[in-house]
Amino acid sequence: MKIMDDAMTELHPLDQAIKLDRDGKILRGATSPAYANMAGPFGGVTAAALLNAVMIDERRLADPIALTVNFCGAIADGAFEIEARLIRGGKNTQHWSVELSQNGAIAATASVVCGVRRPTWTHLPTAAPKTPAFKDVAPPDIPRPIPWVQRYDMRFIEGDLGKFPRNDGVLRPARSLIWLQDVPARLLDFVSLAALSDTFLVRIMLVRGTFQPMATVSMTTYFHVGGEELARIGAAPVLGDANADVFHDCFADQTCALWSEDGRLLANGVQVTWYKE
Amino acid sequence: MKIMDDAMTELHPLDQAIKLDRDGKILRGATSPAYANMAGPFGGVTAAALLNAVMIDERRLADPIALTVNFCGAIADGAFEIEARLIRGGKNTQHWSVELSQNGAIAATASVVCGVRRPTWTHLPTAAPKTPAFKDVAPPDIPRPIPWVQRYDMRFIEGDLGKFPRNDGVLRPARSLIWLQDVPARLLDFVSLAALSDTFLVRIMLVRGTFQPMATVSMTTYFHVGGEELARIGAAPVLGDANADVFHDCFADQTCALWSEDGRLLANGVQVTWYKE
Repeated sequence: MKIMDDAMTELHPLDQAIKLDRDGKILRGATSPAYANMAGPFGGVTAAALLNAVMIDERRLADPIALTVNFCGAIADGAFEIEARLIRGGKNTQHWSVELSQNGAIAATASVVCGVRRPTWTHLPTAAPKTPAFKDVAPPDIPRPIPWVQRYDMRFIEGDLGKFPRNDGVLRPARSLIWLQDVPARLLDFVSLAALSDTFLVRIMLVRGTFQPMATVSMTTYFHVGGEELARIGAAPVLGDANADVFHDCFADQTCALWSEDGRLLANGVQVTWYKE
Repeated sequence: MKIMDDAMTELHPLDQAIKLDRDGKILRGATSPAYANMAGPFGGVTAAALLNAVMIDERRLADPIALTVNFCGAIADGAFEIEARLIRGGKNTQHWSVELSQNGAIAATASVVCGVRRPTWTHLPTAAPKTPAFKDVAPPDIPRPIPWVQRYDMRFIEGDLGKFPRNDGVLRPARSLIWLQDVPARLLDFVSLAALSDTFLVRIMLVRGTFQPMATVSMTTYFHVGGEELARIGAAPVLGDANADVFHDCFADQTCALWSEDGRLLANGVQVTWYKE
């Protein structure tokens, strides 16, 4: 039982990766090997760290509604600093600007809007995609050399990367439909949704099957449930739906939606990605 | 001919509304009666003014790719100041943060990403909606009391507001499909696309048919053509496609896409809106 207790008091790898220590106006954090990407950290965990700077700020009055992250420069493995500025607060919304720096250079910026949700009119005109249940979809039986990918249980219903790179000249649909869950399982909250919204690989990898220079440039995520509703969902998997409309002269878009098992839209968003050739 | 010459050298109302005069680091502008909304200016023209601050900056190296605008507070009719900070520039992208203030209070912020487009792989997996041509759709024969609405030739294929407010308790689909053109016609450019991306009325008006307190909180627009491609399109109308997925406890999302007459996706984006009851 002692071992169990220790394990249970240990921080989840995501919480470890986004942990920020206050030093006056500055919050100090560090990249985590558990969420390493090819070079530097997984963008989703950077987004989660930027949002976390607002989540832990005592001036925050309400749940986050919108998060835009701009990836301005490469983030190196190691320490970073975050500063959150409260731009303006009203009765219903609060606007924040957040900057992440390394060695004095800004590497990412974010804007966060928090908003007071009051119980009122709800209308959900869009239904979740119909899919088999999480437990009925097998995880892919392929090696996952990238550390951050190992931090998610990804079960593809559609749009698996498959053998990669394929380099077969065949263009595939840009859509992926995936059950996603933190590894180890973790209670859903806004920071985990922020990270989950970036777990959809840059769509060019799926469409072309090529491995080429590419990066997310800017990403926007909207949250569509309140914190209490999210807490009631617990540590359940979410259904991710990603797609893209256009790849043109070095830039492509992509969309994402994250649904609960009972068909509620928890978050959705867009990102624009850069590719070289 | 003299009258004609004068008319031709006059600024288009949109250019007048986003005109900025440099005063050191500060750019000075003013709201325009031509784009007035119920209270304060049309959000699309505020977005265009924020983008314009980057467009006219001599440090700008490339066309805009992404624009996120956060509407932090009410903007009063009258003068405003904009300051654009170049956050970081690389070989491929340049990141800007822009703030609009009135009387020392920040009323809107924006992030702008500019990106160098090089002729390379293009793939356009999503086709434009099939619709009748602009010239074959009649403009709605209804009064348009709001000034900014008069600045657009809007021809509804689907999702017209119709009699408003209806207050009939009937929920309608959130989608609108509309031919849109500046009035008077104006060459398409990035600032006009930024404004066009906010011409879709807050979806709750269409869905519920009610007039209630509501506002756009944050808006993100991605541009999918280079400046030269856009210039070649000229002053043609664009096909707008707007929709929404969720309305829940005071906040709703909406999506938009702007297509050229020959079916190219010029821009797309998302916004999150607040509503009261």
